[in-house]
Amino acid sequence: MADLNEGLDRRAAGIAASLRSEIDAFIVMDVMREANAREAAGERIIHMEVGQPATPAPRSALEAARRALDTDRLGYTEALGLPALRARIARHYRERHGLDIGAARVVVTAGSSAGFVLAFLALFDPGDRVALPSPGYPCYRHILTALGCRPHLIETGPQGRWMPDGAMIGRAATMAGEGPLKGLLVASPANPTGTMLSPDQLAGLIAACRTHGLAFISDEIYHGLTYEGPAATALSFGEDVVVINSFSKYFSMTGWRIGWMVVPEALVRPIERLAQNLYISPSTIAQHAAIGAFDAGDELEANRLVYARNRALLLEGLPAAGFREILPADGAFYLYADVGHWTDDARAFARRLLAETGIATTPGLDFDATRGNRYLRLSYAGATSAMVEALERLVRWRP
Amino acid sequence: MADLNEGLDRRAAGIAASLRSEIDAFIVMDVMREANAREAAGERIIHMEVGQPATPAPRSALEAARRALDTDRLGYTEALGLPALRARIARHYRERHGLDIGAARVVVTAGSSAGFVLAFLALFDPGDRVALPSPGYPCYRHILTALGCRPHLIETGPQGRWMPDGAMIGRAATMAGEGPLKGLLVASPANPTGTMLSPDQLAGLIAACRTHGLAFISDEIYHGLTYEGPAATALSFGEDVVVINSFSKYFSMTGWRIGWMVVPEALVRPIERLAQNLYISPSTIAQHAAIGAFDAGDELEANRLVYARNRALLLEGLPAAGFREILPADGAFYLYADVGHWTDDARAFARRLLAETGIATTPGLDFDATRGNRYLRLSYAGATSAMVEALERLVRWRP
Repeated sequence: MADLNEGLDRRAAGIAASLRSEIDAFIVMDVMREANAREAAGERIIHMEVGQPATPAPRSALEAARRALDTDRLGYTEALGLPALRARIARHYRERHGLDIGAARVVVTAGSSAGFVLAFLALFDPGDRVALPSPGYPCYRHILTALGCRPHLIETGPQGRWMPDGAMIGRAATMAGEGPLKGLLVASPANPTGTMLSPDQLAGLIAACRTHGLAFISDEIYHGLTYEGPAATALSFGEDVVVINSFSKYFSMTGWRIGWMVVPEALVRPIERLAQNLYISPSTIAQHAAIGAFDAGDELEANRLVYARNRALLLEGLPAAGFREILPADGAFYLYADVGHWTDDARAFARRLLAETGIATTPGLDFDATRGNRYLRLSYAGATSAMVEALERLVRWRP
Repeated sequence: MADLNEGLDRRAAGIAASLRSEIDAFIVMDVMREANAREAAGERIIHMEVGQPATPAPRSALEAARRALDTDRLGYTEALGLPALRARIARHYRERHGLDIGAARVVVTAGSSAGFVLAFLALFDPGDRVALPSPGYPCYRHILTALGCRPHLIETGPQGRWMPDGAMIGRAATMAGEGPLKGLLVASPANPTGTMLSPDQLAGLIAACRTHGLAFISDEIYHGLTYEGPAATALSFGEDVVVINSFSKYFSMTGWRIGWMVVPEALVRPIERLAQNLYISPSTIAQHAAIGAFDAGDELEANRLVYARNRALLLEGLPAAGFREILPADGAFYLYADVGHWTDDARAFARRLLAETGIATTPGLDFDATRGNRYLRLSYAGATSAMVEALERLVRWRP
């Protein structure tokens, strides 16, 4: 078949990468890969780069997974998820927030990642602009870009505690040119800043979206991980919002890739069609584990208390290591620290920090293309002993 | 906060579904949902609608999963997958096909579904045309459409054993108008037809793609499930092809949502960036189970022998139930049957069949928008006892 292979040398034009694949990396994943390589080579790495709890899934989830392994074929489920899990998630809103959302509006997804893809495809067409606070989770803008939409970054700062407000939304909506603004996505608690919206602020943003005909997407993945009072769900303010959540963070199940959405009734069928075609169904064992996760009792609260302790330790200890300014960390498990007195190249700084101290962190560039070079994100989702050790290494280090 | 909720009645324009969400359903999933509802109501349903083995994952995979549950935190992995699984997949090509592909070109994915999304985003830009044989797996065209590409259907028929050839690709590539043809996706064994390409035919299609500068994507998800001789991998004919495979079918792990790609070196980094942002990482427990699946020994071959027996039973028994023409079923676990003497509305026919016999099947419409109304797809991935029972019900039924 030599003659049939003769085209091989030409490296056919057909295998060139597309233009839209030219999105930025999710830098934290690149840092994690490098940190893992150093670890495999024998270094003692402290992982503060990724939002990865030190704990596994709660015992009740692991037991449900074991039961499923023993008794279930673990075949495809329906695209929207196991009816029992959808019902259990609906019950969670009744118990936690006093809301009767109805299981029919619950969509089980392969992590919040799938939630974003499904929400963006279901709500926005190519060319549509979608407002995102900056700094923010980088995958929002990269997924939007890969799907042909235009992230419209709304720069936040200390004056608004790093959150947007209705006036900013109004200005963004009425800006001239380059495609209509069609939506706003906000996370509270936010990543990387850790700041939160008050219920009134959240209601104000939703009202602004209604005024301007924008879809409101609420990323609630860090709900449950709060230290100054609970977070309000956008569902408290109406049925015309899209909520995205996950078992990764509060439920400590990152690698299980399981999450959920609550969507307006009119979006259920469009999202079901998209999910059938793009995902078929979410992981079956993860769905069983997720049902079990709701019975975790005090275990998840104990995890939260560890984060609270880590947070207090770092907020107290980091100034001694020369960290001058850290954003208010109301929730999630990140500190977003200004390192502008040490560097104007956060990526090189994080690389040097990793090489010289074995502490992996994420450069702010991942979250903020314009100001991120003077910031570093540190995750305190790890064990307290690791935080203590990190502080010791940092205090000894000369940046 | 009543005043803030006053916009609620207006059902903000912002929550209207996008144009691109108007893709068709993956009909088989709708059929499965209806069949499950009947089952839950007490009916005895025979599932021949979905490509779902009756067996769970092989014992070695289940044991690996149990071990991982007991010992691993099951956190995020690197976006391209666990290095050990990538290496194990590379070894599989050495052992099975005598090919040294290198683990660096292996991408672990959340099922072949994620493989399609990643391949399409990495290779094609909005407006690009991608050739697909018709009939074919519906999600190809629906995912392409959702991502802004144009499926270019190449109608196949009995004269070419329901497979395209180089001349058809040449005609498609030189067709005037409506966007450049940028790729071809072919599955062998194919779904729903079950037909296969010979190694020479496969090499011929790859050569045609090189001539016309098209990317060649080979869906090899049904490899291992062949009854008339093994299937050739596209990787035997060069490094400039994208291969998509999965643990769902041969390895009997559908609900685990785990698969893989082998891609040209130049695509690894673009696909890694896309995977980081759209998926973060594949299910960790599924990756551990997949490593174990390669040690399944005779168990998977025993599964294949059950399919072979089911296939023989149905091919022998269906004519007595009035089925006149069934496509040659070289591989996979589907029969694609012409029911044009009974109906010109396959969807209504399948619905009546389900209601009157309890046998769930998929209307050909899912796979072929123009001719599918006279076809039905029957999966024989179930237990042999179910096939026997299905034949008994079908022989008694009066269509």
